[in-house]
Amino acid sequence: MYNLDNIIKERLKPEQLKQFNKIYYGREDHCKLKLLESTIEVSARNNFDVAGYSFSAAKEEVRKPNILRLGLIQHSIALPTDSPICEQRQAIFDKIEKIIDVASSENVRIICLQEAWTMPFFLCTREKERWAEFVESPSDGPSTLFLSKLAKKHEMVIVSPILEKDEDGVWWNTAVIIDEMGNYMGKHRKNHLPSVGSFSETSYYAPGDTGHPVFETKYGKIAVNICYGRHQALNWLMFAINGADIVFNPSATIAEFGETFWGIEARNAAIANSYFTCSINRVGNEEFYVQNEKKSRTYYGSSYVTAPDGSRTPGLSKDKDGLLIVEVDLNLCRQIKDKWNFNMTARLDMYTKALAQFK
Amino acid sequence: MYNLDNIIKERLKPEQLKQFNKIYYGREDHCKLKLLESTIEVSARNNFDVAGYSFSAAKEEVRKPNILRLGLIQHSIALPTDSPICEQRQAIFDKIEKIIDVASSENVRIICLQEAWTMPFFLCTREKERWAEFVESPSDGPSTLFLSKLAKKHEMVIVSPILEKDEDGVWWNTAVIIDEMGNYMGKHRKNHLPSVGSFSETSYYAPGDTGHPVFETKYGKIAVNICYGRHQALNWLMFAINGADIVFNPSATIAEFGETFWGIEARNAAIANSYFTCSINRVGNEEFYVQNEKKSRTYYGSSYVTAPDGSRTPGLSKDKDGLLIVEVDLNLCRQIKDKWNFNMTARLDMYTKALAQFK
Repeated sequence: MYNLDNIIKERLKPEQLKQFNKIYYGREDHCKLKLLESTIEVSARNNFDVAGYSFSAAKEEVRKPNILRLGLIQHSIALPTDSPICEQRQAIFDKIEKIIDVASSENVRIICLQEAWTMPFFLCTREKERWAEFVESPSDGPSTLFLSKLAKKHEMVIVSPILEKDEDGVWWNTAVIIDEMGNYMGKHRKNHLPSVGSFSETSYYAPGDTGHPVFETKYGKIAVNICYGRHQALNWLMFAINGADIVFNPSATIAEFGETFWGIEARNAAIANSYFTCSINRVGNEEFYVQNEKKSRTYYGSSYVTAPDGSRTPGLSKDKDGLLIVEVDLNLCRQIKDKWNFNMTARLDMYTKALAQFK
Repeated sequence: MYNLDNIIKERLKPEQLKQFNKIYYGREDHCKLKLLESTIEVSARNNFDVAGYSFSAAKEEVRKPNILRLGLIQHSIALPTDSPICEQRQAIFDKIEKIIDVASSENVRIICLQEAWTMPFFLCTREKERWAEFVESPSDGPSTLFLSKLAKKHEMVIVSPILEKDEDGVWWNTAVIIDEMGNYMGKHRKNHLPSVGSFSETSYYAPGDTGHPVFETKYGKIAVNICYGRHQALNWLMFAINGADIVFNPSATIAEFGETFWGIEARNAAIANSYFTCSINRVGNEEFYVQNEKKSRTYYGSSYVTAPDGSRTPGLSKDKDGLLIVEVDLNLCRQIKDKWNFNMTARLDMYTKALAQFK
């Protein structure tokens, strides 16, 4: 698939390209990270892309820089959707392990996978029983056990969006947080569930009941806004109010469901809330046979990161597995808050009253 | 000043340009309106740009199409800032009258001017008394009297953002709504006031006390989110809750204050709230001498309109007076609400409680 940004890069003069980047990416230069030789070699051999960018902050007198690397992984499923469930999952585990190894070698400290990363996004099938064995316990299901080992080995915090089955057998769309010692740290359940056209998640699981938790990990205060929740300004806002410096948005979304504004919403949220947003979307084509009818959905990847000043990285590719490494200085969050004062001028008391009156 | 979009248009092949427009403007084709010969002639003679675009909606069985034309005006001041106040204002009136005449000939039914449109944006000077005579009564001040005549003549609703002095002499940053018969219909006072770096509006006027009114004009339900209020997601949201189909964002903003995300925030608001947003910014360079020190600020124009589906028009120029004419079918608002269900899934009860707890 051709890459539009590459074409524009070829066709514009350097000064024009700076202007283009400023308007469309929020800064004149993308600030690429230099990757290790081994990263380039391993990723080529295993057929995934790696891209790296950095965002800096001003030096401060009292605080030290708070620099770390974040990792975002986008991937396709690895086997056809009618393969045995354990094999499908294991094949995904195998490729994710290789990507996380590379991320670790590049010093990534917090990594996030895509929504329902261990499985095809079967929610379009309207079948439930057929897929029930992909759904697991967040604290000790197969994916948490698998990632805990990697988290411990690499001293990495891992955000793992899965489908959860609770002790009563109720399903939830859940992001599990695993700390850098490999321990289960907590979870967040998706707050807003889409019903768009013939696609609906409400027959699979309930809207989240965990509010807007922010996890104070060793490396930073993080939160997770799962997929469709990115359309809700208040969802983003509550994570800011609760102190997040980084909000991940693991997604599974197809072109017809808003590709034209994929670059807008998470970027706007970073600006409005003075934090980093990390947008992740799966890639590849997934085919299902439902009552002998073929359903097919293609995910467009394009994972990217936005800084609190509104500048963003280019997206990963639309059709290939990829690792996006982003070096951030978390001091930028407070610096931008102090600059724009969006939180100081938010008048939340006025809105609390206005919303109460409305309800 | 060169126009980046024109350069990109020249350098990309037709298929690539469609892809570019889709990603960066939300649709493959800009759907230009054909303008009258007289529009082209009058605008050239008076040195302002005119551009026109349309957004369509699907046909419905029960409702008729609800098509109308909106107008956005961006302009520079007309005389140096040390000229007599009445002359400065009159010179602006003179050029605005010509632009509104053209808008009328193109069947524009609702028009909005930029923030504090009758004056230089003197709020950067930190002086108050020197400029006090620009500040006026919203119901019968000079600008309302001037625009009322035009509104009546052209059967046009006019949104007139001015600085207001109330009966107690207190100032407000206010948008006046004049109906199509030339009557004062109401006003909205700016809710969120910026304090950014050395620039602060809080010493001039108080944060608005008029809430989030929506005006049911003959042509559509409109609201006004003045300038810095575009950074506040809840400000946009309340206008949606109160029923707006069109929200104007009259502004006066310079490159250092977020030009890199000018294209993001109002566009995101249109998506999040399923209404049209109309972003207007002044143009030109304004020079002030304050205690013998020269202050200079340059506004970057780039006014644009976004539809509820997230597609947007190109911006007007960065440095020239301009009229943006946009034909909309207001039926699109409900169609998009029904498609995405962002309001159905908003869980406002949850947020009302969460915000109340926080406060």
